[in-house]
Amino acid sequence: MSQMGKLQEFRILPKSVDEYIPVVGEERINRLKEIAKPLRGKKVLNINATAYGGGVAELLKTQIAIMQDLGLQVDWNVLTAPPEFYDVTKLFHNTMQGDLKKATDEQKQIYLETVEANAKSLVENYDFVVIHDPQPLAMINYMTAPTGKWIWRCHIDTSTPNEDTWNFLYPYMQNYDAVIFTLEEFVKEGAKLNNLTFIPPSIDPLSPKNSYMAETEVNNLMRNFNVDPDRPLMCQVSRFDPWKDPLGVIDVYRNIKSNQMKNNISGLQLALIGGMANDDPEGWSIYDKVLRKAGEDYDLNIYTNFHNVGDIGVKAFQYASDVILQKSLKEGFGLTVSEALWKGTPVIGGNVGGIKIQIKDGENGFLVNNIQEATEKTTYLLQHPAEAKKMGEAGREIVREQFLCIREIEDHLKLFNKLSQ
Amino acid sequence: MSQMGKLQEFRILPKSVDEYIPVVGEERINRLKEIAKPLRGKKVLNINATAYGGGVAELLKTQIAIMQDLGLQVDWNVLTAPPEFYDVTKLFHNTMQGDLKKATDEQKQIYLETVEANAKSLVENYDFVVIHDPQPLAMINYMTAPTGKWIWRCHIDTSTPNEDTWNFLYPYMQNYDAVIFTLEEFVKEGAKLNNLTFIPPSIDPLSPKNSYMAETEVNNLMRNFNVDPDRPLMCQVSRFDPWKDPLGVIDVYRNIKSNQMKNNISGLQLALIGGMANDDPEGWSIYDKVLRKAGEDYDLNIYTNFHNVGDIGVKAFQYASDVILQKSLKEGFGLTVSEALWKGTPVIGGNVGGIKIQIKDGENGFLVNNIQEATEKTTYLLQHPAEAKKMGEAGREIVREQFLCIREIEDHLKLFNKLSQ
Repeated sequence: MSQMGKLQEFRILPKSVDEYIPVVGEERINRLKEIAKPLRGKKVLNINATAYGGGVAELLKTQIAIMQDLGLQVDWNVLTAPPEFYDVTKLFHNTMQGDLKKATDEQKQIYLETVEANAKSLVENYDFVVIHDPQPLAMINYMTAPTGKWIWRCHIDTSTPNEDTWNFLYPYMQNYDAVIFTLEEFVKEGAKLNNLTFIPPSIDPLSPKNSYMAETEVNNLMRNFNVDPDRPLMCQVSRFDPWKDPLGVIDVYRNIKSNQMKNNISGLQLALIGGMANDDPEGWSIYDKVLRKAGEDYDLNIYTNFHNVGDIGVKAFQYASDVILQKSLKEGFGLTVSEALWKGTPVIGGNVGGIKIQIKDGENGFLVNNIQEATEKTTYLLQHPAEAKKMGEAGREIVREQFLCIREIEDHLKLFNKLSQ
Repeated sequence: MSQMGKLQEFRILPKSVDEYIPVVGEERINRLKEIAKPLRGKKVLNINATAYGGGVAELLKTQIAIMQDLGLQVDWNVLTAPPEFYDVTKLFHNTMQGDLKKATDEQKQIYLETVEANAKSLVENYDFVVIHDPQPLAMINYMTAPTGKWIWRCHIDTSTPNEDTWNFLYPYMQNYDAVIFTLEEFVKEGAKLNNLTFIPPSIDPLSPKNSYMAETEVNNLMRNFNVDPDRPLMCQVSRFDPWKDPLGVIDVYRNIKSNQMKNNISGLQLALIGGMANDDPEGWSIYDKVLRKAGEDYDLNIYTNFHNVGDIGVKAFQYASDVILQKSLKEGFGLTVSEALWKGTPVIGGNVGGIKIQIKDGENGFLVNNIQEATEKTTYLLQHPAEAKKMGEAGREIVREQFLCIREIEDHLKLFNKLSQ
């Protein structure tokens, strides 16, 4: 190996938990402060693989800042590693989710050497060490005198992993004092892990992605994106990926459009918004198929990060839509559902993964199993705007209760308290 | 300014001019050696803004290597500069070609300061200094004791520049001993410049882009790109840019396709191949329009650099096509025309810019002024494959004579000789 790793420290901008009082109420913030009381002064270290990009790093910043404001001493370290290491951990990431490729012995060695080097650079003592995802997982075995409680926080679905990767990583998981998964169904059957805990992810209601946007601004942005704010709009915000079924969403839109007169819906528009990676030919291939299927119907707008949409643009679409779809055929958690619900828009989601716990069927949207069901439910919501509005409002309340960062922090602090006993 | 520039030297891999004997014949290489004789030992310095990317840097490498083999001592220096400098020179590049934006006084100062710093780092003496494009243009004014002859080589069309940029840069041009433009029509009317010389660009027949490719390999690659090598293929290789009129090319293809039976053409295919820049929303917008217009017609294949086509893929398309189109509405030189002709494929080009000097109408292709003419000429070539083949072969001979790097080097050496008298 040409270069060995050493943990790198990242500083977080401070945040006050009281900023969230107007969002979730004083009672919940007081409850959070109570839970945090016994943990004041405790030292917590988070370790993950990247400080930039990806939902995990984004939300970690909020969580760390709030925990600090609650009196804990929270640090954040990021692995440093040679490029080969990231090839291996990308392979682990994919194989833990079922990809069939196998890591070579050499790759496993690169992984262990890098993790060992990073582990040896850790000299300070902590009360809690939270290790995120498979990249730094094996660190626990290289601590000469591991102090405090070690927690592995797994953000991915490892229910049907590639056996080879699982057998390699499982012994490390077993050494942890506690293991957090997003959902019970993400854990491999039969896995024996200490203090197995389930904590769904969450959104930060004060981030630019989720903060309030006035209707006039929403409408301005919509016009800018070729959307008529006075006509009905359905929208899916999702990577261009076959598992998100963007082609199926176009079918839903076309089904409704072809029965518009009968259904008393007029001028329906569809927007498909999704991120694209430069280096992902598969992503380009599905993007091309989507555009070709859209053809020259410009009531159907398609935008990627290459079209200057960005977080604010996505937020505007979530606000402007009459219905948001998340028609996934397979899904991790699908946090875009909570993002949309938080804007008061009802969501019709595929009946898979974490979508099932965010959508209460008939309450804040609908769970659907195929294009026909998605067509029926979307039609229903477009025909009953008052009902749709009510469901959107119900969705916002469900998110307020269950899927904001305040709840996720509370869950973590409860686990810290439990491990302290 | 945070950082000042200093010229950076680039080394070129050696090349032997004799490698080109099989391509252009011994007689022409001998003629070139004759022209080079009086220049043996002369010192030449090329200065431009980038060593990577762009056709200019690519061809410069070939030219420098061959001139060295011919006995000249040729160096290549590249400007170094702070990022702001490139914003200014990008603006100059666009405004010299007619863009209306205006450089601020501060920007002009950044330009001059950077050029001055680079100029001051030049201490060696040369017989000829060749300055490429506007980026290093002003250097000539900062030479305390400029030795040798200074030549400005302008690769862009400055016939209708933004007056503000022109007035700023024109005095520097006037100080040069000679100025080279690609075409006479690229020079602003009334410009008074010393030893004004016209040298069209050229292609390197031995580069991976233009070297021979066997038919079996071409056919393999075509199948890989979803093209049936046994059915007729028309193709345009061009950036996705409104001035290249890719939408017009689709119209041509559709016109022919809708009259296929009548015209006795069956199973026509179209390929549109073009580079895309990440940071060019306008490029994305036209790309999207092209895909939408293509719709779900998969006899029409569309590929960008994001689809792993690359130089070799482009070459295969140029070989495989029955007709290449370059239906530009506005064009600089359009070197893709020579690239295609070199593969023995006839080209139908827009009657603009440098396309006009590469296509002899009716000899190696056709010049067209609109979609109807393009449709007629493409139909004609598809209906008369023997004639098309003959025109392609004529095209290859025209390129061999006029548009290979050997000719461009000859032109430069002739200018050096003229300036030495």
